[in-house]
Amino acid sequence: MIKRALSLSAYGWIMNSNRRINTKQMPEGVWDGLGVEIAHKIELLSAFTDEKGKMTRLYLGPAHRRSVDQVLAWMREAGLEAHLDAAGNVIGRRPGNGEIQKSLMLGSHIDTVRNGGIYDGTLGVLSAIAVASRLHRAGVQLPFDLEVVAFGDEEGVRYPTTLSGSRALAGKFDAKVLDEVDADGISRREALLAFGCDPDKIGELARDPTKVLGYLEVHIEQGPVLEANDLAVGIVTGISGANRGRVRIEGETGHAGTVPMALRKDALATAAEMILAVEREARARAEHDAGIVATVGRIEVPNAAVNTVPGVVEFTIDLRAPTDKTRSETRERIALALETIAEVRGLRADVGFSYEAPAAASDPHLIEQLAAALENTGQPAFKLPSGAGHDAMSFSGHIPAAMLFVRSSAGVSHRPEEYTSVEDIDVAGRVLLAFVAGLAGYE
Amino acid sequence: MIKRALSLSAYGWIMNSNRRINTKQMPEGVWDGLGVEIAHKIELLSAFTDEKGKMTRLYLGPAHRRSVDQVLAWMREAGLEAHLDAAGNVIGRRPGNGEIQKSLMLGSHIDTVRNGGIYDGTLGVLSAIAVASRLHRAGVQLPFDLEVVAFGDEEGVRYPTTLSGSRALAGKFDAKVLDEVDADGISRREALLAFGCDPDKIGELARDPTKVLGYLEVHIEQGPVLEANDLAVGIVTGISGANRGRVRIEGETGHAGTVPMALRKDALATAAEMILAVEREARARAEHDAGIVATVGRIEVPNAAVNTVPGVVEFTIDLRAPTDKTRSETRERIALALETIAEVRGLRADVGFSYEAPAAASDPHLIEQLAAALENTGQPAFKLPSGAGHDAMSFSGHIPAAMLFVRSSAGVSHRPEEYTSVEDIDVAGRVLLAFVAGLAGYE
Repeated sequence: MIKRALSLSAYGWIMNSNRRINTKQMPEGVWDGLGVEIAHKIELLSAFTDEKGKMTRLYLGPAHRRSVDQVLAWMREAGLEAHLDAAGNVIGRRPGNGEIQKSLMLGSHIDTVRNGGIYDGTLGVLSAIAVASRLHRAGVQLPFDLEVVAFGDEEGVRYPTTLSGSRALAGKFDAKVLDEVDADGISRREALLAFGCDPDKIGELARDPTKVLGYLEVHIEQGPVLEANDLAVGIVTGISGANRGRVRIEGETGHAGTVPMALRKDALATAAEMILAVEREARARAEHDAGIVATVGRIEVPNAAVNTVPGVVEFTIDLRAPTDKTRSETRERIALALETIAEVRGLRADVGFSYEAPAAASDPHLIEQLAAALENTGQPAFKLPSGAGHDAMSFSGHIPAAMLFVRSSAGVSHRPEEYTSVEDIDVAGRVLLAFVAGLAGYE
Repeated sequence: MIKRALSLSAYGWIMNSNRRINTKQMPEGVWDGLGVEIAHKIELLSAFTDEKGKMTRLYLGPAHRRSVDQVLAWMREAGLEAHLDAAGNVIGRRPGNGEIQKSLMLGSHIDTVRNGGIYDGTLGVLSAIAVASRLHRAGVQLPFDLEVVAFGDEEGVRYPTTLSGSRALAGKFDAKVLDEVDADGISRREALLAFGCDPDKIGELARDPTKVLGYLEVHIEQGPVLEANDLAVGIVTGISGANRGRVRIEGETGHAGTVPMALRKDALATAAEMILAVEREARARAEHDAGIVATVGRIEVPNAAVNTVPGVVEFTIDLRAPTDKTRSETRERIALALETIAEVRGLRADVGFSYEAPAAASDPHLIEQLAAALENTGQPAFKLPSGAGHDAMSFSGHIPAAMLFVRSSAGVSHRPEEYTSVEDIDVAGRVLLAFVAGLAGYE
């Protein structure tokens, strides 16, 4: 099955030496039926929900509890030593033959948004378990440890802060978030204790980066790019950095009948010109740097009336870009464009960008390894950025990480209509298995 | 004081004959102190409010009741035979010498919006009473009857339909509105009965158009045009007709991070382009036809979120123009522009105009007479359309009507900041007196 041998640079990266792994052949049959197996488990897991008739599984809630038990059982069936850790992560481990004293981590998350879809997160966890299961049943020895992780706090629905589980493994857990409370006043600490986790031991979960080969996450794309390119899977080049901005325009309110066009200081017409400028700047940059997106998602006209010229308007800006340099350049261009519009129209505008998350580039060696796995399974090595956040970004700067995106029907996610076909899931499963096999020196 | 004699056409219009009124001289002193007198009464009347600390006087409410009593008293002091009619209008009459068997009606309204200003409406009523008072004290006989009217239902705050008082005098009262109820479930009929009015007699209030010379209303401009032209007063050429429209755009909702710019069907960016098109079309027409205004006052993005590409947007359009032809042409151009924008962007848009009020042009003879009065009091005969509705429009097509606008500070109305200076009120009072005097043949 494996058609392309690993590159020397990839070997060097794995071994941190010039030693060469012996080329081996994967047993027949391990590749078959992965899609059906994974999709079936995704369906089974979707039964665990906090809201009947909807897919709602919040961090440390009752449906999360039952999902953890189910995942533990599936991990053990797949030959993994499994446990729930102090942060609410489910960890399954398959020791290697000791040749490389490092572990490869595969995983994603099992929490969902309220009334979301059944593929977001679970696809990555269940693909990883399926791959571990195939290796186990075929008796394949790996030169490194294999770990499967099911994070539980990715969607950020229950508590203000999110990604606490992956941040714990990355050594970035901030104990202050233990005091955060949910809508019912239950603190994170209390919820962890009730879940059987010891919050005081979360600090001990931090992995030694010298003991980890890397983290690979399979996830639905949640966007329309793969579908538009007629592809099942794609390599994520990185997770975009983000800014959030808020614009407040102060013009002059007036009677829609009595203020002539020439004497108006219409805050909404000004906002309209600004919204088009945001779109124009992002479009212009996106022609050269794919993945740059800017969105005006909310707009408010206080005291609006049909027959009133709007005096005040506020709107938001969401800006994302694969590199921090492009993002800051685009942000500056947008700010300048908006200020110029306000000046020309003679209105006051306050343009502020408050929230910043830096970009998290995928590890180049993992990308190379993933590209080989795609090629070896007959897929074009298509690359795309991720505009949404994922657990993978928690590892940025500490542990090499990369992601494989799988086609989402119509680009939809976080809704009941979210869908990824069994055929595409099968491709994702085979790529993940090929990735592990390739890294282990199988040909 | 009167420097310009009436034109022959104006005489013909008054007398409906070639008979010439003898030229007479107005007594000295009648012109002095009008502004102070009117402004003082405006202040006194503002004490009658339904909400302490705010100017709120709703139709047939307790503050309206006390205002009616005060206006009746002031009318009687001014030598007028005064009464409250079946529709809640206060009517004061000063019989003429019988030479012309018609009445000249002057007036405006004494109701207000909630937390409005003190000049809107009351300025016209109290100017008319002041003019009647001057004529009374100076013993000036008029060849026609003089009527002063204080309407009570102009703002349309308490009941869905408005202008019921002026429509009653114009013979346009629709008895169905008697069944309308206010927010407390009190019907118009019940409120009229409690106010001492007989709703079944409203039909009898209709004036015989052959017995009325015309209706002239002094009113604050409620817009910035006079201030921008450094003028105290202006002649209203007519009350603009209006359309209200509603636009619904259906694009595709999406994740702000994952949908590339080129694959978006962003309903808000589309709305932004449309809002600018509405503004552009109105501005272009307004260069040739002053008074054309188009406003997007409300915009809504259902289920809006900072990180969501808006899938659906709705907004309103308020379009007004001094002539119905210009308005329908502009409406068609706007609709075409919006549909083209939706088509080019590949989104669905529904553009509907539902509400239509025809334009009500001022009577040309009254305009001419008013222009003479302005000239005779040393004011330029500046003309402007009214984009807002007024009682004067009720008379359209039945009884000649015209209006004199008075400068509003910063164009503000319907707010506590509403303000018109004593100097400007004085000019308005003198113009009104000159108008009556000119019509009566005084020189």
